[in-house]
Amino acid sequence: MVDSKIEAEKKFEDFSEWYNDILERADLIDKRYPVKGMNIWKPYGWKLMSLIDKETRRLMNDTDHQEVKFPLLIPEEEFQKEADHIKGFGEEVYWVTHAGKRRLDIPLLLRPTSETAMYPVFDLWIRSHADLPLKIFQMVNVFRYETKQTRAFMRMREIHFFEAHTCHATEGEAERQIYQDLEIMDEIARMLCIPYLKLKRTDWDKFPGADYTVGGDALLPTGRLLQIAGIHQYLTNFSEAYDITYEDLDGEHKNVHQTTYGMSERLIGALIAIHGDDVGPVIPPYIAPIQVRIIPIQYGEDRKIVDHCKTLLDKLIKADIRADIDDREDVRPGSKFYESEEKGIPVRLDIGSNELEDDIITIVRRDTGEKKTVSTKDAIKELKLIFETMQSEMYERAEEFLKNNIVDASDISEISEEKVYRIGWCGTFECGEGIEESTDRSILGTLYDGEEYSSKCLWCEEETDTVAYLCKTH
Amino acid sequence: MVDSKIEAEKKFEDFSEWYNDILERADLIDKRYPVKGMNIWKPYGWKLMSLIDKETRRLMNDTDHQEVKFPLLIPEEEFQKEADHIKGFGEEVYWVTHAGKRRLDIPLLLRPTSETAMYPVFDLWIRSHADLPLKIFQMVNVFRYETKQTRAFMRMREIHFFEAHTCHATEGEAERQIYQDLEIMDEIARMLCIPYLKLKRTDWDKFPGADYTVGGDALLPTGRLLQIAGIHQYLTNFSEAYDITYEDLDGEHKNVHQTTYGMSERLIGALIAIHGDDVGPVIPPYIAPIQVRIIPIQYGEDRKIVDHCKTLLDKLIKADIRADIDDREDVRPGSKFYESEEKGIPVRLDIGSNELEDDIITIVRRDTGEKKTVSTKDAIKELKLIFETMQSEMYERAEEFLKNNIVDASDISEISEEKVYRIGWCGTFECGEGIEESTDRSILGTLYDGEEYSSKCLWCEEETDTVAYLCKTH
Repeated sequence: MVDSKIEAEKKFEDFSEWYNDILERADLIDKRYPVKGMNIWKPYGWKLMSLIDKETRRLMNDTDHQEVKFPLLIPEEEFQKEADHIKGFGEEVYWVTHAGKRRLDIPLLLRPTSETAMYPVFDLWIRSHADLPLKIFQMVNVFRYETKQTRAFMRMREIHFFEAHTCHATEGEAERQIYQDLEIMDEIARMLCIPYLKLKRTDWDKFPGADYTVGGDALLPTGRLLQIAGIHQYLTNFSEAYDITYEDLDGEHKNVHQTTYGMSERLIGALIAIHGDDVGPVIPPYIAPIQVRIIPIQYGEDRKIVDHCKTLLDKLIKADIRADIDDREDVRPGSKFYESEEKGIPVRLDIGSNELEDDIITIVRRDTGEKKTVSTKDAIKELKLIFETMQSEMYERAEEFLKNNIVDASDISEISEEKVYRIGWCGTFECGEGIEESTDRSILGTLYDGEEYSSKCLWCEEETDTVAYLCKTH
Repeated sequence: MVDSKIEAEKKFEDFSEWYNDILERADLIDKRYPVKGMNIWKPYGWKLMSLIDKETRRLMNDTDHQEVKFPLLIPEEEFQKEADHIKGFGEEVYWVTHAGKRRLDIPLLLRPTSETAMYPVFDLWIRSHADLPLKIFQMVNVFRYETKQTRAFMRMREIHFFEAHTCHATEGEAERQIYQDLEIMDEIARMLCIPYLKLKRTDWDKFPGADYTVGGDALLPTGRLLQIAGIHQYLTNFSEAYDITYEDLDGEHKNVHQTTYGMSERLIGALIAIHGDDVGPVIPPYIAPIQVRIIPIQYGEDRKIVDHCKTLLDKLIKADIRADIDDREDVRPGSKFYESEEKGIPVRLDIGSNELEDDIITIVRRDTGEKKTVSTKDAIKELKLIFETMQSEMYERAEEFLKNNIVDASDISEISEEKVYRIGWCGTFECGEGIEESTDRSILGTLYDGEEYSSKCLWCEEETDTVAYLCKTH
């Protein structure tokens, strides 16, 4: 039983071992499915993902996106229309070649992302400027044959994927869409307590087929960045390949400007890695499947405490708090506390004979282990307050970690730790390649919002006002 | 503009043409995706499916089922453990054989249903009687390479699938689960206004691997039955093949008893076919994406009516009515009425200068075309009443159609129309085969709830108390 001080040491010692271990015990997924890179979502994990999806859906609806669902299978021919795209994804697509014992006339691939499924139809949906903007999204399974080591939530071969696709009349409107996507991402990051960097990727690291890509990168305890969102400006790259045009006010046919915005279950991977401690994950209250677990501390036959807890539970549920009760009779309170922590349930209510007598509740915060005793009648108000506090404190702690791990480097020799380095870079491919290879790190890009800087390129030593972020990645 | 009398003739004349035509115009799906049997869910159609899913999810949660998500791809070896199952599905599975340019070591198949994905893991989840019952469900895409003519919502190669899987200690408990499933199905059928027959299938028509199957069959305007639900008793057929055991109170290891319950987007197909008319579908209010459409009837510059309608819209939305407004300025009211009908929106509110002056609203029912004028202040109450009335009247109309189309036949020669025939059948395969072949129809089974009957087998003329349902199917 963890009492007042929560320890988070193990994840800095051996991240992989710690991560796999707490995932197993949190009961979010089962990794024993007999295909590599494909896990089973258990009820608790799927509930967490569904709550994140629900919030994403709300934000999408609020910004006039409409939900659709496109088929999984894409004909070879459609996939091959945009040259960079196939170069980027060709090596990792799964091919369906047979049905029953028959060979298919046309091989079909499992979508790694849905540009090539959607865009042949966009041309049919869009006629004139009145049909623009077109803003749709879907939440689907996508497949990528990852050759790197797979990892639960972070690098999967079947991915739970969110993808928004938009078409606009002008580049300016497409740019504004990207700005809106980043605002939505900010809200999601707040809900999940994941601060992140918005980095405009280098040309050699952008999405296959994009004009530019903004990566949303979260810093894990390993000191490495994990991309949790990708927002892409396509300009007319795809609309030319797929012939998606609209008739403007002057009767002229023009290619639409397109953007996409993608996220996945990596959001869960990031939040577990960032906020987990030695015992398990810590799930932010806003998206926690169980926000409050009530634990009656009772010995013997008397049902008074359990009954009291059940009344309290009803009250919480009525107030739209996702709560449950652990009233198993054959399990000791200590084990119940521990299980609640292993599952990352943000708030625990311990109710024993003292609480019953004084008509109070003892609230225990999962993130800090802090205990607080309040009057039962104030339960709802206090819990909602604690949710708010936890949300902002968890975000701030992670933000501090991120800030503390961004360091400036003005010479290659300074780059040795597992940190995010801010470096001068003249912007050329040659110097970028030199920096990446000599440091064994990637240039993740420059801040989307820009920042003032004046330094020398780490490689060619030319004066530059470009500051790039250099780091290892997951 | 349809005024007071709704016509439904076309669907009885040429069902296929009518069905394809109204689907196109209702904007539920786009059938132009370049792979046969795979359609695009447009926002309106996906919203309808999502509302049905939401209700199904609620009913599942209320009966202690938990939602999970299993991987799509199944290794060949796992698929081949239950002999009847592979015989039933082997011919229609899609095979993934390659990733990138590499041939996979083990071919993977796209799930046609998830028994063979789930059951190898059930063995790991279930240890003792305390782990039972295990009741899970998922909503996923499944794939079946249909060789028959495909049809939107009814016979697809990518299917939006609901599947519940349960494990129980005893056959009795599994039987009670099937009873519960049928109660859930009754509620869903009520919401969708689809009366149906619960038919215990013949042995040669049951689910591959099942001990018995109860099909939920809806009668379409064609006079043919469409299976909209399948509920299956597996006994220990799968648990023996997959070695799923539990330790009972006496420390003995026993195989679990299993059931499944499956549904799909066929629910939508059935409701459109049953309730649609010459203009389009009629969507029952309970699951309609748009329950009420407000149409301001206004000419010229004055915004008074539109403003009044917007105030009314806010009021409806606050009362949890899914409402919208068609306030396009360049479209005439007549076209707006028609579009609302093409989309099957159950209730229309026409608001013009008369309505504004007298502070009333004109309510138009989609199913009957009936108009009713009520005071604006009673809008919410009246609308909710009309929803209730529509739900029950739509159900009753369909029930009457079903009843009127079930006829008794005591001789093969009487079987010629597109109807459901009640026939005497001795229960043997030989006679069943004779009846099916000579009538070019299928024996769909006997009523799950049983019914009294005394007649002669239509083929061998032996006395029998078994009454079977004989019909063509979709």
